[in-house]
Amino acid sequence: ARVMYDFAAEPGNNELTVNEGEIITITNPDIGGGWLEGKNSKGERGLVPTDYVEILTEGAKDGFFCGNSVADQAFFDSLSSNAAQINSAAKTNNQVNSAHDPWPNWQSGNVDNTNSGDGWASKPESAVGQKNTTSNNWEGAAQFGHPQAYQGPAAADDDDWDDDWDDPKSTSPSYLGYKDSESSEAGGPQRGNTRAAAMKLPLNKFPGFAKPGMEQYLLAKQLVKPKEKISIIIGDYGPMWVYPTSTFDCIVADPKKGSKMYGLKSYIEYQLTCTNTNRSVNHRYKHFDWLYERLLGKFGFAIPIPSLPDKQVTGRFEEEFIKMRMERLQGWMTRMCRHPVVSESEVFQQFLNFRDEKEWKTGKRKAEKDEIVGVMIFSTMEPEAPDLDMIEIEQKCDAVGRFTKSMDDGVKELLTVGQEHWKRCTGPLPKEYQKIGKALQSLALVFSTSGYQGESDLNEAITEAGKTYEEIASLVAEQPKKDLHFLMETNHEYKGFLGCFPDIIGAHKGAIEKVKESDKLVATSKITPQEKQNMVKRVGTMAYALQAEMNHFHSNRIYDYNNVIRLYLEQQAQFYETVSTQLHSAFSQAPDQ
Amino acid sequence: ARVMYDFAAEPGNNELTVNEGEIITITNPDIGGGWLEGKNSKGERGLVPTDYVEILTEGAKDGFFCGNSVADQAFFDSLSSNAAQINSAAKTNNQVNSAHDPWPNWQSGNVDNTNSGDGWASKPESAVGQKNTTSNNWEGAAQFGHPQAYQGPAAADDDDWDDDWDDPKSTSPSYLGYKDSESSEAGGPQRGNTRAAAMKLPLNKFPGFAKPGMEQYLLAKQLVKPKEKISIIIGDYGPMWVYPTSTFDCIVADPKKGSKMYGLKSYIEYQLTCTNTNRSVNHRYKHFDWLYERLLGKFGFAIPIPSLPDKQVTGRFEEEFIKMRMERLQGWMTRMCRHPVVSESEVFQQFLNFRDEKEWKTGKRKAEKDEIVGVMIFSTMEPEAPDLDMIEIEQKCDAVGRFTKSMDDGVKELLTVGQEHWKRCTGPLPKEYQKIGKALQSLALVFSTSGYQGESDLNEAITEAGKTYEEIASLVAEQPKKDLHFLMETNHEYKGFLGCFPDIIGAHKGAIEKVKESDKLVATSKITPQEKQNMVKRVGTMAYALQAEMNHFHSNRIYDYNNVIRLYLEQQAQFYETVSTQLHSAFSQAPDQ
Repeated sequence: ARVMYDFAAEPGNNELTVNEGEIITITNPDIGGGWLEGKNSKGERGLVPTDYVEILTEGAKDGFFCGNSVADQAFFDSLSSNAAQINSAAKTNNQVNSAHDPWPNWQSGNVDNTNSGDGWASKPESAVGQKNTTSNNWEGAAQFGHPQAYQGPAAADDDDWDDDWDDPKSTSPSYLGYKDSESSEAGGPQRGNTRAAAMKLPLNKFPGFAKPGMEQYLLAKQLVKPKEKISIIIGDYGPMWVYPTSTFDCIVADPKKGSKMYGLKSYIEYQLTCTNTNRSVNHRYKHFDWLYERLLGKFGFAIPIPSLPDKQVTGRFEEEFIKMRMERLQGWMTRMCRHPVVSESEVFQQFLNFRDEKEWKTGKRKAEKDEIVGVMIFSTMEPEAPDLDMIEIEQKCDAVGRFTKSMDDGVKELLTVGQEHWKRCTGPLPKEYQKIGKALQSLALVFSTSGYQGESDLNEAITEAGKTYEEIASLVAEQPKKDLHFLMETNHEYKGFLGCFPDIIGAHKGAIEKVKESDKLVATSKITPQEKQNMVKRVGTMAYALQAEMNHFHSNRIYDYNNVIRLYLEQQAQFYETVSTQLHSAFSQAPDQ
Repeated sequence: ARVMYDFAAEPGNNELTVNEGEIITITNPDIGGGWLEGKNSKGERGLVPTDYVEILTEGAKDGFFCGNSVADQAFFDSLSSNAAQINSAAKTNNQVNSAHDPWPNWQSGNVDNTNSGDGWASKPESAVGQKNTTSNNWEGAAQFGHPQAYQGPAAADDDDWDDDWDDPKSTSPSYLGYKDSESSEAGGPQRGNTRAAAMKLPLNKFPGFAKPGMEQYLLAKQLVKPKEKISIIIGDYGPMWVYPTSTFDCIVADPKKGSKMYGLKSYIEYQLTCTNTNRSVNHRYKHFDWLYERLLGKFGFAIPIPSLPDKQVTGRFEEEFIKMRMERLQGWMTRMCRHPVVSESEVFQQFLNFRDEKEWKTGKRKAEKDEIVGVMIFSTMEPEAPDLDMIEIEQKCDAVGRFTKSMDDGVKELLTVGQEHWKRCTGPLPKEYQKIGKALQSLALVFSTSGYQGESDLNEAITEAGKTYEEIASLVAEQPKKDLHFLMETNHEYKGFLGCFPDIIGAHKGAIEKVKESDKLVATSKITPQEKQNMVKRVGTMAYALQAEMNHFHSNRIYDYNNVIRLYLEQQAQFYETVSTQLHSAFSQAPDQ
């Protein structure tokens, strides 16, 4: 096995110090609790965290790359040389943009680039934490795949998973993690980033499911009629998902520290309680991560599935961090519960409603074997609506691309400004008020040494003013937690949503491109006219799904932003009023001479 | 004549470009309007500003130093070798402290150095604009004397004065000049600095007044009984000046641009109106400067005479600058009018109440010939109070030294903090609010492109919130002019006062030292016991004067700080209330969903 991260043995714990890049021999692959026993080249033996090493498989001895993706690519290219060009263009574009911009080339032509002066194309992309590869590569290679993927389903036992551990190099949490999102934007590849990349090609994980994806969906003669049917109806606002008659939320609470291996490894377990059943289940972060990967794999091309809050090693048990992670896990769960398609899905229901460990494990294995993933999700959809023509389809898709790109810019601008403001309000500004307060108080102290009679009133007034400014300092420093925090969190969440759209739009654009080329394929008898007709209908289904999802997105957006703006303004008004009251009280204590 | 500053000729104005250090021959010493005609080594002729060149006199051809000061120093040294040691110690100290700290050595021993961690001794001294030489040097050499002093009274015609021009290298005015005071702290010697240095030895200016100063005052058998008698009485708060029965202020107003030399040189003339007489006179800045030098020469060892607002070349006629200078000239005049000794002095009265040009010139010449200057001012004082013993005298003096030094530190701290706050409130903070406002508005603009129905309420609310933050930005940026400005101005004024104390305390300490040594002088028959007795009495008079002045200072201080703190708190409270109201109004426009 190849060591992926430096690991320093704790003395007396039977551990083995290993360095990144080192090759060790695994002498016992499953000690339990996320540990394996290894032997290094010097023959020293000891325990190493399972997820610090990568089991080298046949054909992948030299690196992280999955061999069969190249074959997939070749198949795809033979079908559509144009798509390959898009692919390579997207790659080039991404190279220019430091490979960090998930908004690919198809945008630049279409977007109403009114604010092109901002040069959005050259901005480092913050959604990189979400998805990291070239976006048009929706059928490309699984580069930097999650090591876990290579262990194969047989090797993976429930107790053998990743722990909550993340890249040990990740920075320590700045308050509320706004810094984290920045650092992950700027930093090199982190394990958190690779997860999504791997999940973009979930089919690679499932041997026996050959020639997967877009061709299968668009060209298959007869779509499988799955038991799970996702309805799309035409409502007042256009296409929409069918909302369940009763909704529920899931309360994430009561984080408890648990430990394994006699305290060697510890973790946090959260209690999840559904508001409809009032029953609770417990889940660790890695279980959420598992759910995220399932949802992304299953719905990721139709529904934006925002990534979970970042994994974190440093300060993992620090109170503030646990509170913050729980708050964000809660936000994430609420989002998922609010989504009519996701919340009704079997994998999601099973995650919340298993009765015992056995039922959970059975459900988990079933979900992992689910074949309706990737673009195949569209095969479960039957819009009760007239067929769309290609022009309409393309326009709708472009409109969504434009809007989500613009909103992504807007949200990021607000986040940048908010981040700056947060820093000022919690750093230099209160420090300055404190300095003013201290300067006033020390002046009053000097005055009191004058020996001059009858100036105690003045000195008390100045001291009072000084104290007031010290109080203002802490009011200023505490305020962002009461208002800016929520504005930031909402925008942070939406940044997560919006970061999913390049892939979604990419899939749609890819499908549209294929249909556009299909005439040529019909002419050269590579496909039948019936197949071409099927393609148009299926791209139409995709367009309806996109519309339905956008309508869901918009209604949520309006609700969320309205709430958060109201809260922000109300809290801000209250803050300024409080400060004013305090100053007025200090003023009234100064002698009116 | 030697050129002191670079001067670049304006084309077509018959001027001559000269460089610092260049020697030119004066072909016409008085062209009028502050210009002379000179010839450079190449034989080129042209006009040069009079105050850009120094007329080289006998024995001073090689530099700026006035020869006879060395003789004075020798006389002094022969009398008191100890004083010379203090002198050289002070010099050393000043060298270490970049020669910028007017608070000399005598402090460090006495001061209750509770905040010695601040290292006040190593702080660059901001009062340098006021007085620049070693402070104990109260009878030392007139280094860097004002060039005007060397022209002799005969050469100086009323029309031949300095113009308003100052060192052309001085920085352009930052708003309200707070930056100026900083830059003059950091900068090298400026002409503004040299003025006070020259005035510290006003007696050098008056030939025929030999062996001037402390010895004369302390040792003279019979003090001249001048017509001008300054009374000191014992009031409720201890020794005090006698306040005149009626007071007056002087309104500085109506700045008018005038010009001379057919518009070649222009200046600003201010109208001064006394509130008691309601009559007006006009004065240029240079007249104020003349008055300042007279007052400093006459009262400077007994009464802190703060320097005038800095001279300024750049933007001299810029509206903001004129307004600011006038405001500060007003402040300065009000201070002087409020002072019972200064306001009643002949020179001050004459400055405000001359009836015509002739009367002004006569009064001006008379004031320049006044021999009651320097420490001789104490000879006009007759405290109606019991004699003090030396221990009391020294304690009082030390107490004043400690207080003024501590207050100087306190005031500077507040100015530093205020300066920082000013910058933030007028720079980054409103910029940030503006950014928040713009970010909100552009997000609303993006939202409006969604094509989703029924979100116009939200978008209007967000736009309104954005506009409110833009308004807050300008409220924040404008607010310092309404409150911080006055807090800064008051502290700035007091910094000016406090900067005078090192010289005042230095004179007192010097006198005390002399009396301490006088026993030795009596023993060696260098002075008589009667002379020694006179010395104690006269140092006692100085101590009473110091007490009287401190009581005046304290009562003003209490009044001023009370006013400014009240104003500051009231304005600040109002500001926060306004912001709160605006935010609340924006809040009320967001839909309550």
